[in-house]
Amino acid sequence: MLAALLNGQPIDSNLPIIHMNDRGWQYGDGVFETMLLKASRVRFWQDHVQRLQEGCERLRMPPPSQTVFQQELALLIGKQTDGVVKFILTRGRGGRGYRPDPATTPTRVWQLFPALSPQPAAIALRCCDTRLSRNSLLAGIKHLNRLEQVLAQAEWDDTSIAEGLLLDTEGELVCGTMSNLFLVLDGVLVTPDLRYSGVRGVMRKNVLQLASTLNMVTEERAVWPQELTVAQEVFITNALRGIKPVVALRSGSEIEQQWGVGEITAALLTAVDSVQPRS
Amino acid sequence: MLAALLNGQPIDSNLPIIHMNDRGWQYGDGVFETMLLKASRVRFWQDHVQRLQEGCERLRMPPPSQTVFQQELALLIGKQTDGVVKFILTRGRGGRGYRPDPATTPTRVWQLFPALSPQPAAIALRCCDTRLSRNSLLAGIKHLNRLEQVLAQAEWDDTSIAEGLLLDTEGELVCGTMSNLFLVLDGVLVTPDLRYSGVRGVMRKNVLQLASTLNMVTEERAVWPQELTVAQEVFITNALRGIKPVVALRSGSEIEQQWGVGEITAALLTAVDSVQPRS
Repeated sequence: MLAALLNGQPIDSNLPIIHMNDRGWQYGDGVFETMLLKASRVRFWQDHVQRLQEGCERLRMPPPSQTVFQQELALLIGKQTDGVVKFILTRGRGGRGYRPDPATTPTRVWQLFPALSPQPAAIALRCCDTRLSRNSLLAGIKHLNRLEQVLAQAEWDDTSIAEGLLLDTEGELVCGTMSNLFLVLDGVLVTPDLRYSGVRGVMRKNVLQLASTLNMVTEERAVWPQELTVAQEVFITNALRGIKPVVALRSGSEIEQQWGVGEITAALLTAVDSVQPRS
Repeated sequence: MLAALLNGQPIDSNLPIIHMNDRGWQYGDGVFETMLLKASRVRFWQDHVQRLQEGCERLRMPPPSQTVFQQELALLIGKQTDGVVKFILTRGRGGRGYRPDPATTPTRVWQLFPALSPQPAAIALRCCDTRLSRNSLLAGIKHLNRLEQVLAQAEWDDTSIAEGLLLDTEGELVCGTMSNLFLVLDGVLVTPDLRYSGVRGVMRKNVLQLASTLNMVTEERAVWPQELTVAQEVFITNALRGIKPVVALRSGSEIEQQWGVGEITAALLTAVDSVQPRS
């Protein structure tokens, strides 16, 4: 870790800073954002701010003011030009018991990490056994209850598989453990609608907007795993890695399916860089 | 808070002790137990130990050794005779990313709180709008992903309503926000089977065992809310409050339904105190 802030104050990242009564620690009662710092700016900043606000509304927590948020970011990154910025907001310190006290002051923690090591231009996926639960109350926002993602990632450690796909408990195909999923089906760009689970990724939102600008036909709807077998193109998105074309679905060392990097994926890769450059 | 321990060491409970990279804080990646200290002993100690171990197995975390667990409890409570003991075990400090590292050392935190203030002998419930998600991977254990319980308890603040009932997303009646539910239906003691959500309470387990000893007929099965309307007796259980007869289901100030304290509830109340006294 390169730097950290607690409630606006720079802190030694080796020291413990969280109180055991913090509701983030006790219940996962909070939200977070993970952002790409590139050439001294946070990519898709306004989209991160907006999702954070939506998460706060859903959990009935006061969001940080945009001014505070922006000032703290500037203090965190200082002269660092590239890296990964993580922001966690919890409901703050409480007493024993689940009931939130509206008077509680939220806890804000910023962390700055070095830039990610490069990933291949196209990647392989697997399908996880861990299922996502369905709850529209929590779907879409980036809250701190992440045990399903932890269990899913514990399923494999082969570094040549970049991501695991997740179905929900009813068998719908929803997302990756840390990414959103797009399929091209008969020329239509399809992505799961996330009405019951998954996180509405910032890159997902930008890809949908760009696709519309490029006059592509898009659909947000329920997606089922068998649609992978007929997809012409597959890619995943996240705020740190951007758009990642998927060239293989693997099960262990066995390749179950392969795709090329198609025209729609290539057009979106070009477009997303021109709208808000990565460097 | 009366006392606290971090990894076996007594600590000042006013100081921050948790690292921001602790996976409990980052992802709710851990389990907890809340126990009743009465007359210098923890009630149903072995049942708490067993559920903690089950939780660790499910999350693939190493459980603390029983010796360590017992020694730390003794150190925590000292000469205190009565109170509430909370134990949190997280996967420990990690790097960025969901994937757990099997080499991580778990974080153990004990907290000792004063004894609960008394509650009426019989209580009123309400029904929450917040729904529980269904996921057999996480059902039954007392993990740290508790946002659904937080949102449910945020729904009301009328202290004359002691607990809120929770349905799951398919409409099954599962439990309270911090308790298990029992109904008496035509002389049969029925409790939700918790196959998809809810926590397998230690008091629930003891009630089922006692009922069997008393030759009561018991059923663990899916329960639906309309069964409340035909139940002859209703009670809830938790490790701190024991068995609590329910005498009313309320919606705001309106009473939707009422029950008396029936024979089966009364027999179990007597039996549970004789098996492992509360004081």
